[in-house]
Amino acid sequence: MRICFIGDSFVNGTGDDDCLGWPGRLCARARQAGRDVTLYNLGIRRDTSADILARWEREARARLMPEHDGRLVFSFGVNDCVHEVLDRPRVREDDAITNANAILARAASWRPTLMIGPPWTGDPGLDARVRRLSERFAGICDDLSVPFLSLWRAQIDGEVWHQEAVEGDGIHPNRGGYTRVADLVDMWPPWRVWMGAGDEQ
Amino acid sequence: MRICFIGDSFVNGTGDDDCLGWPGRLCARARQAGRDVTLYNLGIRRDTSADILARWEREARARLMPEHDGRLVFSFGVNDCVHEVLDRPRVREDDAITNANAILARAASWRPTLMIGPPWTGDPGLDARVRRLSERFAGICDDLSVPFLSLWRAQIDGEVWHQEAVEGDGIHPNRGGYTRVADLVDMWPPWRVWMGAGDEQ
Repeated sequence: MRICFIGDSFVNGTGDDDCLGWPGRLCARARQAGRDVTLYNLGIRRDTSADILARWEREARARLMPEHDGRLVFSFGVNDCVHEVLDRPRVREDDAITNANAILARAASWRPTLMIGPPWTGDPGLDARVRRLSERFAGICDDLSVPFLSLWRAQIDGEVWHQEAVEGDGIHPNRGGYTRVADLVDMWPPWRVWMGAGDEQ
Repeated sequence: MRICFIGDSFVNGTGDDDCLGWPGRLCARARQAGRDVTLYNLGIRRDTSADILARWEREARARLMPEHDGRLVFSFGVNDCVHEVLDRPRVREDDAITNANAILARAASWRPTLMIGPPWTGDPGLDARVRRLSERFAGICDDLSVPFLSLWRAQIDGEVWHQEAVEGDGIHPNRGGYTRVADLVDMWPPWRVWMGAGDEQ
């Protein structure tokens, strides 16, 4: 099974001194449990839903040939909500929804697709917008029958994440935060179905 | 510093149960030594020099903005030499040289660039072609002033690599083989200069 993880710095694993992020940890666990998984980490720092819409399909098609058991995991949204100029988000909420809908509808019509919601940042104003966007992502994923994992609903223990972010660049966690996200995805039934089902061709 | 590692399955780290490959191990060591390195692993299984020529610049430009201290490390060549039909390589040797020249000339005019030569596979006929191609890559890198690390000249202990490949899919090593390549690059003076020099902006 070959999996493209597509998203932003939180997918890339920025800040992780082990250079694994949550996708690397998930796939290493799967391999160590005997699954023949190939990891393609396509997280890019600062990417918004608009950036991902523009690039994801070309990059994924270069990696997943028709004969492969290729799959897609998306996670984005925080960068859309960041205010850069005049209290305006980099991507307006309605545009983020339109972009996500275009990405996920196309993806799910091509390959098995999962979505992991955007995480928190510790900035209260930003987090309020991210949380609201995450809820709207949940809605479109429901409409598209794409399984969606909300980190906000998961009641994850955020203390490690926040502590590591403070010790790091202020936004990104380190091993502990990414391990907690990996734990959460690893226990998630849609991921467990993938890990129980697909064999490498 | 943000580094794109661009190449084939040996760059991707295919077969590594830790999902790091040699680029992940190198960057994790750099981070643990206090360097602010971001890893973009752009290795794709089965990619030849022709595949990489077609995609590398678009993928790297999506990741390295003008304001970043962005750098490039290439490694490819084995897939060019694989015979698929009628004892013909997937990419003719002269075409592989033309492709590599086009990639590296363009890359080096844009960003600091290194090249790691292609590794061995354990197949004597294939390895003879890879070794010859690696020597020709060394020549064009010399012409372009791109530092080139030959794994063939390095007299690396190949036993671990071969043993792991036999236990794996027959071609790709696991932790031990990738760790040895990471060791080799980590000691290589051009890499050491990068790790001593660049600070994240």
